[in-house]
Amino acid sequence: MNVREEVRKMKLVSPAMASTSNEDRSRMLRGIAEALTAGKDEIFAANAEDVAAAEKEGISPSIIKRLRFTEEKLRDCLAGIDTMIQLPDPTGKIELARELDEGLTLYRVTVPIGVIGVIFEARPDALVQISCLCIRSGNCAVLKGGKETAKTNKVLFDVIKAAAVKEGMPADALLQVSLHNEIDELLACDGDVDLLIPRGSNKFVQYIMNNTKIPVMGHADGVCHTYVDRYADQDQALRIIIDAKTQYAAACNATETVLIDRAILPEFLPKLKDALDRNHVRIHGTKEIADLTGCDVMADDAFHKEYLDNDISLKAVRDVKEAVDHINHFGSHHTDSILTENEENARYFLSMVDSAGVYQNCSTRFADGYRYGFGAEVGISTSKLHARGPVGLDGLVTYKYKLIGHGQIVGDYASGKKQFHHKDLPVQS
Amino acid sequence: MNVREEVRKMKLVSPAMASTSNEDRSRMLRGIAEALTAGKDEIFAANAEDVAAAEKEGISPSIIKRLRFTEEKLRDCLAGIDTMIQLPDPTGKIELARELDEGLTLYRVTVPIGVIGVIFEARPDALVQISCLCIRSGNCAVLKGGKETAKTNKVLFDVIKAAAVKEGMPADALLQVSLHNEIDELLACDGDVDLLIPRGSNKFVQYIMNNTKIPVMGHADGVCHTYVDRYADQDQALRIIIDAKTQYAAACNATETVLIDRAILPEFLPKLKDALDRNHVRIHGTKEIADLTGCDVMADDAFHKEYLDNDISLKAVRDVKEAVDHINHFGSHHTDSILTENEENARYFLSMVDSAGVYQNCSTRFADGYRYGFGAEVGISTSKLHARGPVGLDGLVTYKYKLIGHGQIVGDYASGKKQFHHKDLPVQS
Repeated sequence: MNVREEVRKMKLVSPAMASTSNEDRSRMLRGIAEALTAGKDEIFAANAEDVAAAEKEGISPSIIKRLRFTEEKLRDCLAGIDTMIQLPDPTGKIELARELDEGLTLYRVTVPIGVIGVIFEARPDALVQISCLCIRSGNCAVLKGGKETAKTNKVLFDVIKAAAVKEGMPADALLQVSLHNEIDELLACDGDVDLLIPRGSNKFVQYIMNNTKIPVMGHADGVCHTYVDRYADQDQALRIIIDAKTQYAAACNATETVLIDRAILPEFLPKLKDALDRNHVRIHGTKEIADLTGCDVMADDAFHKEYLDNDISLKAVRDVKEAVDHINHFGSHHTDSILTENEENARYFLSMVDSAGVYQNCSTRFADGYRYGFGAEVGISTSKLHARGPVGLDGLVTYKYKLIGHGQIVGDYASGKKQFHHKDLPVQS
Repeated sequence: MNVREEVRKMKLVSPAMASTSNEDRSRMLRGIAEALTAGKDEIFAANAEDVAAAEKEGISPSIIKRLRFTEEKLRDCLAGIDTMIQLPDPTGKIELARELDEGLTLYRVTVPIGVIGVIFEARPDALVQISCLCIRSGNCAVLKGGKETAKTNKVLFDVIKAAAVKEGMPADALLQVSLHNEIDELLACDGDVDLLIPRGSNKFVQYIMNNTKIPVMGHADGVCHTYVDRYADQDQALRIIIDAKTQYAAACNATETVLIDRAILPEFLPKLKDALDRNHVRIHGTKEIADLTGCDVMADDAFHKEYLDNDISLKAVRDVKEAVDHINHFGSHHTDSILTENEENARYFLSMVDSAGVYQNCSTRFADGYRYGFGAEVGISTSKLHARGPVGLDGLVTYKYKLIGHGQIVGDYASGKKQFHHKDLPVQS
């Protein structure tokens, strides 16, 4: 396949895709849901081949679990599609309506971004979620999934595309690339692809960011922190830390570092060590922590590390201020939580920590589009521009300014013959 | 100056700057307005030196006019500051409030971006506008102005910074760099600078985009179009085109290309040629246009060109559809206008043209933050991500998700022990 050529066709069709109505796109999604249900035997059969091949290659059971596309995962996908249909149309929203002068009215209206490239890990449900999010938001999409689920992806993609086209989607609006070298072709499609969303390892995301002129949204690292303040409910803190670390250690929103207010260190650390030991979490820490627990001593720089495993870094800090400074320096601006009953310390932390998610008294693992009520997410962004945190439909739109006049020219305003009056008009919400 | 070191200090102080209140920042702006008024003699004296040096170098009168800082420009700056103070605080706005479950509430709150670098042309009023926009939105800023106004910039910057610091701004929150080689040092400050806004020539903006890992917002080109539909009011069209081309030909929002519906070509083109001739605009066109007007014949590729001068490209098109295709292919996604009394053609154009600004029956020159009622603009963006079009205070903020819990863990939701109920709460607007 000539990726550049296909993507150029997609670019040409993107204004038409963007101009489809809310009703059109809801119909496409309903068609997809029906087709997935009708085609499930074929999908499961392809998935069984992928899983058998992975098992033969000796891939670990925890990864195999992610490759599997089961009745349960299909049900979750269908529920996600249903949520997306219920959610308000992210496009066509008038964010601002302002009469600049009589008969000269400015509107800021949300519109789809255009052409989005998503490169994602081997997880068949991700293909369903991402393609549906793009269609729901009026975007064209180029999808590249992990090679371990190539057969499943092919069937899923064909089912989804055929169903959407049947309901009126332009055929060039959705494309799957499957070969690894096609990623580099996609990276060269600046000017035609408006946004790239890479998901995967730090190294992979860094590679994408360093090898394209296309704007990239996503995150390379997820170094999330939980800070246990002197005013924390300590039993609650233990439960939250164990959940944040172990409920799914390989996720980007799992806590990597626990910072402990030194004022409660002698009392809290033994309880924490005990809980971590019971949950098979390996402790790493500063010299101060190592002296008290017998754990490995970490180099200062190691606090940048994302374990993605049952490992945790521990450090004592003087107060909430030092905790914030540590997080802003060593963190990845993803999600960080303070455990405290003291509102002043909480306010300071939530205001001063410079991350996409700042939490009080709950697990960092909540950072997720489904949990936030977005139906699904296309990725999580740690960038400050455009969308930040879990990215759902709202993050897949931009806006246009529409200015409707009756012959107005700038010369009349520059000469003082006319004046702007900038009167805001009510907008529906 | 060690730019990297200064910028690092700025990054450290940015959460404190972001946490200043609306009242704090309004006070800083009022202080700046007073100090500019009190210091105007010193500012005008420095500006006279810059202007004298420029005249000695033989710089053209039209550019000298931009270098001058006069009583009138000061008055405009003070009016802009006043507007910024009146505008609602762009930070701290709750965009979403949602109870995920009982006692677990998610807020999406706007916050400053952090550290912004702005590189701008030699225009003293730009320094005032940009620094005030950044302060008003709680951002730290590194400013680099054109060297032709170096003396004026130094005095303006010192006056502004001293006044803001006196009213409580952290001293490290505002920095001016003045040497050309310091631009490259600034470009290397990824990780500390969150956003770069370059203003200037296509070549300069391209250089910035190609030589930094920091996200860049702006525009390299302003190839704006005006399409004269068969249903246009032709007298109005002539006035609009002359304004869009000649009211300020060097501006990015000036029209470079006029597309004419072939159905009215024999009737409209002679009138247009006459009006352009009277306004000293050089005509370039396709062979079809050249045959009718005797103008230069353009190569097809030349329609990508931004003249920034009294030159215009003309082309006949079959209908609104071909006009849209031409604009999406040759344009720079900046601002494009249709002149028509036909609502169906207008709707098609406004929906299908993929630009930051899509206009009906008015001049493309309206694309400007002041004219849109933003008080001032920090630049105009043709990117689809984050802010698009003229960028005012709203484009200088991002958001944070705050999640306030009472001990909730994800395990309870994964196991089915608890369910999310995703109940939206009313937000103040």
